[in-house]
Amino acid sequence: MPNVLISATSMIKIDRYYEYDLMDLATQAVVKLLEKTNENIKPDVVIFSNTYAEKTVSQVSLASKLCNNLGISAMPIRIENGDASGGAAVSTAYYLLKSGEIKSALIVGAEKMGDFPASYLNEIVSENLNEKYQEKVGLTTQSFSAIQMKEYMKKYGVTYDYFAQWPVYMHKYGSENPYAYLKFPVDLKTVKESQLVSDPLRIFDTAARADGASAILMTNEELGKKISENYVKVKAVGFSTSEFRIGEIPSVHGALKTLGDVKADLMEIHDSFSINAALILEEMGYPRGKSLDNLNEIPVNPSGGLKSRGYPGGATGIYQVSEITQQLLGVFPGHRISGNKGLVISTDELGTSAYTILLER
Amino acid sequence: MPNVLISATSMIKIDRYYEYDLMDLATQAVVKLLEKTNENIKPDVVIFSNTYAEKTVSQVSLASKLCNNLGISAMPIRIENGDASGGAAVSTAYYLLKSGEIKSALIVGAEKMGDFPASYLNEIVSENLNEKYQEKVGLTTQSFSAIQMKEYMKKYGVTYDYFAQWPVYMHKYGSENPYAYLKFPVDLKTVKESQLVSDPLRIFDTAARADGASAILMTNEELGKKISENYVKVKAVGFSTSEFRIGEIPSVHGALKTLGDVKADLMEIHDSFSINAALILEEMGYPRGKSLDNLNEIPVNPSGGLKSRGYPGGATGIYQVSEITQQLLGVFPGHRISGNKGLVISTDELGTSAYTILLER
Repeated sequence: MPNVLISATSMIKIDRYYEYDLMDLATQAVVKLLEKTNENIKPDVVIFSNTYAEKTVSQVSLASKLCNNLGISAMPIRIENGDASGGAAVSTAYYLLKSGEIKSALIVGAEKMGDFPASYLNEIVSENLNEKYQEKVGLTTQSFSAIQMKEYMKKYGVTYDYFAQWPVYMHKYGSENPYAYLKFPVDLKTVKESQLVSDPLRIFDTAARADGASAILMTNEELGKKISENYVKVKAVGFSTSEFRIGEIPSVHGALKTLGDVKADLMEIHDSFSINAALILEEMGYPRGKSLDNLNEIPVNPSGGLKSRGYPGGATGIYQVSEITQQLLGVFPGHRISGNKGLVISTDELGTSAYTILLER
Repeated sequence: MPNVLISATSMIKIDRYYEYDLMDLATQAVVKLLEKTNENIKPDVVIFSNTYAEKTVSQVSLASKLCNNLGISAMPIRIENGDASGGAAVSTAYYLLKSGEIKSALIVGAEKMGDFPASYLNEIVSENLNEKYQEKVGLTTQSFSAIQMKEYMKKYGVTYDYFAQWPVYMHKYGSENPYAYLKFPVDLKTVKESQLVSDPLRIFDTAARADGASAILMTNEELGKKISENYVKVKAVGFSTSEFRIGEIPSVHGALKTLGDVKADLMEIHDSFSINAALILEEMGYPRGKSLDNLNEIPVNPSGGLKSRGYPGGATGIYQVSEITQQLLGVFPGHRISGNKGLVISTDELGTSAYTILLER
């Protein structure tokens, strides 16, 4: 079975790009990636990781269009799994390459969210919720998370201050990341006094939505080593689905279990809300009700996370994989964490599905 | 490398289901499929093939939601490649199974188009067009096809009557298919006098949009033979992308070439418009400018095609694979064509990408 490598990565700064459309952003990420490769790559597969294009840019057939934009013929697929689209795309590419029949896969995550008011984005992000019993009765992902927070506070006897620690750490890291959207530090007071969204959830507990594009090139070992000396191995992927549950994210637990006994040196997790960061860390074994009190000891989200680096919808997982790859290679331009094993946990907005990706130098 | 089988298939009648939502239809197709298997299947992967859900039912995370609806944990991915989503989904599953690490994949194609007026559907189907230079300047897939028809008529010296032969054949076959949406025959006169959509394109030259769901179970050989004695082999898949071109569909040619020298006994092709049927047949080697004059000799679309069986968006390719499988097994309940090798050609609305799937008894 062929080993699978990540041979090149690229990111553009997450921001609001009124002057570029979705395909422009995707193409920019690919051009940046190709500059880093030794050979002229014609990928066998082009995967477009995106969640909201129909509602934001009124476009389908995203992967075919990208192929035609790039002037290449390939196997085109667009993969959508809510906010976990990136994890789904990388895991799919992993197995495609394991077949031995596919030698290279270009995976581009791109999303265009910055052109729209928050009310519209709240609506489209709430499409992650179940139609009949959640979305159509008026729930949003924010109100769901507020319920999660209240239950957590009651169960573990913590106050809102507990959650406010997460955005402080994320903005500290994000302020060092040249690709981050909200590139500034915040203090506890600012977080605690920020706009209330759905009591007790505040604006700083939510992901910063914006435009972004990131690309990675996954190859078999032989081809990958020709393309670049700077590669990491994709050691394993895991996945799981589960119903939404109060106080737990069982899908994360399930997806981790398939990796075996993992000891990663650093990780990127999907902090769509501060509460989700706590719940994901606690599914990993950090002490329940206390994980956010010990962030100085946990090597998590040196990018600044969705809070500060920003949240470009279905491109998020591709950013996470790019970031961990660059960390392991020692070339990430922001806050550095050294190590040989990195983990990406890509979940959807409420954790009804999870993908885990283990990378090794 | 493991052999890949299709171990079970199911379809629901294509129709307007005002009483069921997208997940209801998808779930019905899965329940019907599970009734045909010997064992209680827990698929490793669940692929949801769909193109327009964001615009029709305001939902994302389709595959995760289906997993949770079915009460299973699996690797969830939703695959979108315009109208070729089904071909993309089956090809992806083929390579996933070739990896040896994935043993079974449940692929569900489902789409909900019947609740909407034609004007809205025209708009969302036109999202298949390129944003900047096609869709946003007001082109629709219908006007594009009308241009194709005019060029074809000029080049080969044929009249509109030439194209009208296609719907007549499709409705003849469709009237025998219990799963078909427009289950009635039509004569040449009716087609020729039908509503003009975009001169010279008439309503009978266009696909009949409706709701549908079809499911297939793909497995490795060992597992597949336990599940059912009624299986077909997936011999090969091919794919290609190309720019839209007048008078040609280069992607079909490219996708066929990767299969080698194929002699199929029967096939299902994506006749989004009568002109597309002609162009696809001609990319396969049938005489240019004459293919539709010889439909009695071409074993194509015994289902009735998109014209008569109906066009459930991104579920179409899964119907095609189900139909060819049932034909090869001799159990298709409509017009029968006997043979051992069957071919599915799954293209997007205008043929900018194509997937070919070769099945063998």
